[in-house]
Amino acid sequence: MNGAESLVRTLLAGGVDTCFTNPGTSEMHFVAALDHVPGVRCVLGLFEGVVSGMADGYGRMTCKPAATLLHCGPGLANAGANLHNARRANTPIVNIVGDHATYHVRYDAPLGADTEGIARPFSHWVRTAVSARSVAADAAAAIAAARSGAGQIASLVLPANTAWDEADGPAGALPVPPRRKASAAAVDNAARVLRAGGASAVLFLGGPALREVSLAMAGRIAAATGCKVMAQGANARIERGRGRLPVERVPYVVDVALAATADFKRCVAVGAKAPPVAFFAYPGKPSTLFPVDCDIHALAQPDEDVEDSLLQLADALGCRGAAWAAPAAPKAEKASGKLTPDAVALSVAALMPENAIIADESVTSGRAFFGITHGAPPHDWLQITGGSIGCGLPLAAGAAVACPDRKVIGLQADGSAMYTPQALWTMAREKLDCCIIVFANRKYAILLGELMNVGAKNPGRTALDMLDLGRPDIGWVSLARGLGVDGVRVDTMEAFNDVFAAQMRARGPFLIELAL
Amino acid sequence: MNGAESLVRTLLAGGVDTCFTNPGTSEMHFVAALDHVPGVRCVLGLFEGVVSGMADGYGRMTCKPAATLLHCGPGLANAGANLHNARRANTPIVNIVGDHATYHVRYDAPLGADTEGIARPFSHWVRTAVSARSVAADAAAAIAAARSGAGQIASLVLPANTAWDEADGPAGALPVPPRRKASAAAVDNAARVLRAGGASAVLFLGGPALREVSLAMAGRIAAATGCKVMAQGANARIERGRGRLPVERVPYVVDVALAATADFKRCVAVGAKAPPVAFFAYPGKPSTLFPVDCDIHALAQPDEDVEDSLLQLADALGCRGAAWAAPAAPKAEKASGKLTPDAVALSVAALMPENAIIADESVTSGRAFFGITHGAPPHDWLQITGGSIGCGLPLAAGAAVACPDRKVIGLQADGSAMYTPQALWTMAREKLDCCIIVFANRKYAILLGELMNVGAKNPGRTALDMLDLGRPDIGWVSLARGLGVDGVRVDTMEAFNDVFAAQMRARGPFLIELAL
Repeated sequence: MNGAESLVRTLLAGGVDTCFTNPGTSEMHFVAALDHVPGVRCVLGLFEGVVSGMADGYGRMTCKPAATLLHCGPGLANAGANLHNARRANTPIVNIVGDHATYHVRYDAPLGADTEGIARPFSHWVRTAVSARSVAADAAAAIAAARSGAGQIASLVLPANTAWDEADGPAGALPVPPRRKASAAAVDNAARVLRAGGASAVLFLGGPALREVSLAMAGRIAAATGCKVMAQGANARIERGRGRLPVERVPYVVDVALAATADFKRCVAVGAKAPPVAFFAYPGKPSTLFPVDCDIHALAQPDEDVEDSLLQLADALGCRGAAWAAPAAPKAEKASGKLTPDAVALSVAALMPENAIIADESVTSGRAFFGITHGAPPHDWLQITGGSIGCGLPLAAGAAVACPDRKVIGLQADGSAMYTPQALWTMAREKLDCCIIVFANRKYAILLGELMNVGAKNPGRTALDMLDLGRPDIGWVSLARGLGVDGVRVDTMEAFNDVFAAQMRARGPFLIELAL
Repeated sequence: MNGAESLVRTLLAGGVDTCFTNPGTSEMHFVAALDHVPGVRCVLGLFEGVVSGMADGYGRMTCKPAATLLHCGPGLANAGANLHNARRANTPIVNIVGDHATYHVRYDAPLGADTEGIARPFSHWVRTAVSARSVAADAAAAIAAARSGAGQIASLVLPANTAWDEADGPAGALPVPPRRKASAAAVDNAARVLRAGGASAVLFLGGPALREVSLAMAGRIAAATGCKVMAQGANARIERGRGRLPVERVPYVVDVALAATADFKRCVAVGAKAPPVAFFAYPGKPSTLFPVDCDIHALAQPDEDVEDSLLQLADALGCRGAAWAAPAAPKAEKASGKLTPDAVALSVAALMPENAIIADESVTSGRAFFGITHGAPPHDWLQITGGSIGCGLPLAAGAAVACPDRKVIGLQADGSAMYTPQALWTMAREKLDCCIIVFANRKYAILLGELMNVGAKNPGRTALDMLDLGRPDIGWVSLARGLGVDGVRVDTMEAFNDVFAAQMRARGPFLIELAL
């Protein structure tokens, strides 16, 4: 058994049975091992950013790591932007990064690069295998690292000869230390803060606190104490829709956020980083989005046992077993007339099936979507977490690989989609059940706003051209068809409703371009 | 004047008048300054890998740096793969990388990342501006670094507040130290080696030694001494075609390379790294591609004065003023019949205009192209230098920006083109005179060969699927049209000849998909 085979068998022993791949020469023995050891599903992406983004979507939905197969240093760099988002989402991922044979490194071949150096800014854990006999133990350690804490990015660099040389065999799964539980003192303190605070207190949620069961517990805690509940602005996954606690997120725009949080005097943070931080700095505006006099109390850090901390808090407040029901939400009705993002949101909420997954990289076009869809059928909402655009299409693909029985709906800004359009090809190849809605406003709309926000007045042609995606207009249907995904462009709500409703009944990938 | 304006004026003072951009929020003041300070041509790319690849193509043709405008850490990472190629090409580039305001960094905002850490593996020079008042001097240093030695990647990180705070004004251009000249001892030694070696000696060329004038000098030296002349396998730019010295490159495939170099006993290296190194290691094969007993003598390192070293060597050999003419090369005749890469090469050589630029990322399909085109009209040949695929389309676009009066022909593998298809959009927007020929063999053909080379036998479905770009087939014409570039798919040489000849007379971007 060579190192590559020991690696594949170690991955399987550690529960890693899906590999998103974009291989190169130095990974050929790993490819061969994936070929002759059954059990790992391999999903090809035609660009590494698609590969890492798919692994992110997969990990968010399965709560376990996929592997990626990436090629040498620059290939890993291509994966970096979506690894950044996955790192911010606390998604577990095991990157297997091929590299030159150890004895070849000193010749500084054309593809030679500082692979560990490239991995480090995007990884919690980095190691280079030193020999074929170390690969199995290294891989087991990588899996354990990925599963640790809140979920981590583990990058194992695999020099070619450590794949092809003789190894001893696979390694078993390593134990993963349980997440630390909230201390009794922290729980008592949180209970005291919320009891005293009433409506001036906020239970601030992130990570696993945004799953259905924890949200219901947050609903009981809010009912018992009168506190507000709010989620982070960007979240890996929220279980929401009818029957679940509707929770608002910290708005993106600084002034809007400050208005939304102006009354907060006390915050109990559960799986969330508090105070929330502005995405960017702006001249004369604060970096944090809670009032400066709001007291922050951390109940559970993102890498601690977030769900248990809410149970303990509910116990302390005596409301764990209290009757609780989500506030009634009217059934959404589909919209008609002019095609606008808000009208599309209404129709999506009205027409989407139960248990759908929404991959949201709609940026400016989708800002109203979230609020409009609290009453939609129960669904999962995945967001861009690290602000590195180009995650939406790969997230949708990865979620569809993870959950083949669920409809995936992509809410996709056009500018962002242009970073990873290759994901459409993987959707076609794997027949993934993804309906992608492209908000074709033909501009970097967010940047037009930001240009004003930073105080740059009266932009001229040069500036506007840098924020404009027209000239030429991107033909999303033509582009998608070139990548094997059928689609249609719609310019009325009636047309949108018809095609979207039909796609909710159909299966397989499809793209709807909105002529905004 | 704020820091951003001092930056733009410093770039202009340093001769940097072209900026390839993909801006984000933290760069808005730089965008505004580019807008109101006239003189910098801004070219938008819809993905950072396109931006860095265009800067590479531009720098190879103009021999001076363009600036790039990149967004925060992950945006820089997206540019990394083509910066890697540019680094291997010794292309001068000044990266301006926006980042969070200095006071915002400690909040670890979602887009926060180790920007310097991301830059370092792809840069010769990295600096972060510490205040608006330092930006001008930092930019002048970056330009000088980019222009130093053989050409370097200089990355200047620009925190947002160093762009918007008040600055003192621009900085003038810094002096660039002249490249070191070859020593008299090295010249005498090289002359002695070549005189003694005859046909067992090779004059091994890279970098500026592959421009017309230096190649003519190499031709005189070869005529005077009987030595062979060979170029590196991967080169930033070769001036070739009728009337110029035809020079073979070290073949990519290890066994083929070893056969081609088997008789070499002595090597004089001029602007080239010797001995040449195999792109990858393979079990049981050597890492270097000259015979182990071949003596290596460096006349000029790539960062030294390569052109002058050849003049000195010719002087030492008494042949500097010798009459010399390139060997007669028959005019290429266009091919007919079955559509094959070699037939296409013949027709390209026959039909291309004088002074064209070829951007070659044809990988396996183009291996015969080079040899077939020695007799084509004079042209420049740009290659993938670092092995990081996805450079071809951006290189073509950047070369076209640099040389608006020259036809650019892209020889493009389909698998590689999928990494940066967004470059087509920039070609359409800027009306760049690029004719892109896509070799649509619908596989990672190089990897099928590599799978055999590394000794992985009898691949099954899982392995083959990872190397196969079919299912679905990519429709290049549809994809290109979606990005604003017209195209056609051809399946006979007659059809290719007609459309290619017409495109050589036309101007503007066009894509020809070869149904191989």
